[in-house]
Amino acid sequence: MTDTQVGIIGAGPAGLLLSYLLHLQGIDAVVLEARSREYVEKRVRAGVCEQPTVDLLRNIGVGARMDAEGMPHHGLSFRFEGEDHRIPLTELTGKCITVYGQQEIVKDLITAHVDKGLRIEFEVSDVVLHDLETERPRVTYTDADGNACELICAAVAGCDGFHGVSRPSIPEGQLKVYDHEYPFAWLGVLAKTPPSHEELIYARHERGFALHSMRSPELTRLYLQVPPGESLDNWPDERIWSELQQRLETKDGFTVREGPILEKNITPMRSFVVEPMQYGRLFLAGDAAHIVPPTGAKGMNLAIADVRNLAWALKALLQVGDPEPAAAYSDRCLDRVWRAEHFSWYMTQMLHADPGADAFQQRLQLSQLRYTVRSKAAAGSLAENYVGLPFR
Amino acid sequence: MTDTQVGIIGAGPAGLLLSYLLHLQGIDAVVLEARSREYVEKRVRAGVCEQPTVDLLRNIGVGARMDAEGMPHHGLSFRFEGEDHRIPLTELTGKCITVYGQQEIVKDLITAHVDKGLRIEFEVSDVVLHDLETERPRVTYTDADGNACELICAAVAGCDGFHGVSRPSIPEGQLKVYDHEYPFAWLGVLAKTPPSHEELIYARHERGFALHSMRSPELTRLYLQVPPGESLDNWPDERIWSELQQRLETKDGFTVREGPILEKNITPMRSFVVEPMQYGRLFLAGDAAHIVPPTGAKGMNLAIADVRNLAWALKALLQVGDPEPAAAYSDRCLDRVWRAEHFSWYMTQMLHADPGADAFQQRLQLSQLRYTVRSKAAAGSLAENYVGLPFR
Repeated sequence: MTDTQVGIIGAGPAGLLLSYLLHLQGIDAVVLEARSREYVEKRVRAGVCEQPTVDLLRNIGVGARMDAEGMPHHGLSFRFEGEDHRIPLTELTGKCITVYGQQEIVKDLITAHVDKGLRIEFEVSDVVLHDLETERPRVTYTDADGNACELICAAVAGCDGFHGVSRPSIPEGQLKVYDHEYPFAWLGVLAKTPPSHEELIYARHERGFALHSMRSPELTRLYLQVPPGESLDNWPDERIWSELQQRLETKDGFTVREGPILEKNITPMRSFVVEPMQYGRLFLAGDAAHIVPPTGAKGMNLAIADVRNLAWALKALLQVGDPEPAAAYSDRCLDRVWRAEHFSWYMTQMLHADPGADAFQQRLQLSQLRYTVRSKAAAGSLAENYVGLPFR
Repeated sequence: MTDTQVGIIGAGPAGLLLSYLLHLQGIDAVVLEARSREYVEKRVRAGVCEQPTVDLLRNIGVGARMDAEGMPHHGLSFRFEGEDHRIPLTELTGKCITVYGQQEIVKDLITAHVDKGLRIEFEVSDVVLHDLETERPRVTYTDADGNACELICAAVAGCDGFHGVSRPSIPEGQLKVYDHEYPFAWLGVLAKTPPSHEELIYARHERGFALHSMRSPELTRLYLQVPPGESLDNWPDERIWSELQQRLETKDGFTVREGPILEKNITPMRSFVVEPMQYGRLFLAGDAAHIVPPTGAKGMNLAIADVRNLAWALKALLQVGDPEPAAAYSDRCLDRVWRAEHFSWYMTQMLHADPGADAFQQRLQLSQLRYTVRSKAAAGSLAENYVGLPFR
């Protein structure tokens, strides 16, 4: 049996950043993670950091490697009808995005935890949350050595993602669920080849959406819109490259640099939100509370915005004895959550080939794209969302 | 049998303005109209003129009464969750809109025709278009006195609206039709009461959309979203006022000024475009070629943009002998047409209660509204479309 102030479920970017922010405020926390350290440090997910995310990591002193190795991007491209249209993010907003993999942020935060002697328990199992309605909630679990453990705390942070145990620990009927499925999925590819272009390319094509991105100067990340429920068996490497070449082609002869495919995966596209993001002394953050389709690159950034609010609310609750910020945690987060949900939906509908769209809707989509790249106001609206609206 | 250069079908804003623009370029035209002069001068339809529309009417010398009686508006309101949010159109764009009824523009143009001795034939019937594939198309019709007439011309302009004879005169299979119906209609009311607010109010409410507009300092124009196919029998005056009060209410106690209802009508909401907007020597303009839902106030403005292009194309064709601009007429118009279609769809989906929308989509709608009134870029994008993008 251990006592701590905050029990954090999940050692992804949300859980680790929350733990570190709490530490900086003098609040004691324990992070419990089902996977191994090696696994979470290699889990390739998000790769685009908003300006507010970068600023926050830098300000708390965990941004050194990000500043050295991350790739600042000052624009991105929309490609359609065989032409490239650059959205000059920095010119429009004064800000930029930084391409730096989620797993790198996780590594940096784990290193910071190790340096400060902060506690993360990897490979735990059987996690169960108890007494969430009380001021002394408990977490029981089995540790990596098979010992039955109990953590008694003042608050629990559910940072364990969409499939984690935290959200289902909230009694039936307490949460309102907003759920929306899209009629497509993304086939993602990590290829050992230098990026074919220095910035991201979002391509709208009759054959379906394609995205050119990167993880490093040697690693290209590419995505293809595929039908939902599609099997990887239908996608041998040659077909993937052929489809990428077609969807990303331009009139002036752009080609994708091909190379060995290191990883392939298929992700369904979903929007999901629960309201409120809390129950008693349990506070949900990141994917445990909301999912966005990846088109807007908002998932990890939203998780980081959540825990920034949560760290502040928990400080008020546990150090000052003021329960108001904790009570308002969900409301405070949800404004940004719904903004990101809308932006992600907007980017998704503007760029994907919707099998259910009629000819009228296809024409609207093209008109929207043409206008967006032509109008400073419309491009500016897209850009300010993409680089990240200020924390409020 | 008469010879003229351009036969114009329809004496709405499109047909009359085209005729006048052609006259200014020294091209002879005849306008044929099924209704009486009195009828078209009293037909209440659109009431919001874009800045490019106002500039054009002023520049060609038919703007004097508009300048004296029209009401320039430098902003409009979005109302939702009981609060008003003003979009400062002029601050954002340097331009404004002018509230001036379509029937007033029609009156001004007819007066200008009379002054110059230009020919409009009212109350014609049995209009049939012939030989459109040739360089000498013909229009046969019966005039107001019952005489069978024939007009031989070099080009025909179909400005006779969605239900006119021009579009159906084009052989089957020549046009691609884009059609989209919305799950709601507008109940429009003209009331003898001063406006309740000095600017337009677009209200999003759980009970449905409502719009507060005006035709003059003494005439208020109000609209309510109703189900498609709704009957006016279900809407006695008391129900209309009660519904308007509920949908337009604010936390600080706004009420709608009530008064005698002079006119009631129900309009279905539809988007419709044909491509191309021409066939042989027949050129479609305005509602004959495209319909927008009224939410964006784009219908008449689009008709005016069309005929501006058409006048220029016909001058090249008939005076200079250059067929290129006429051949490119449709392409030249369609970019603006699709922009207006998208903007009208965007305004419509952001403001109406869609009976088919799930809880997720309702939340997205609110997030979009909140963002639009809060972000200078988003408000600027809306504003530049609303006041009218420059003619290209």
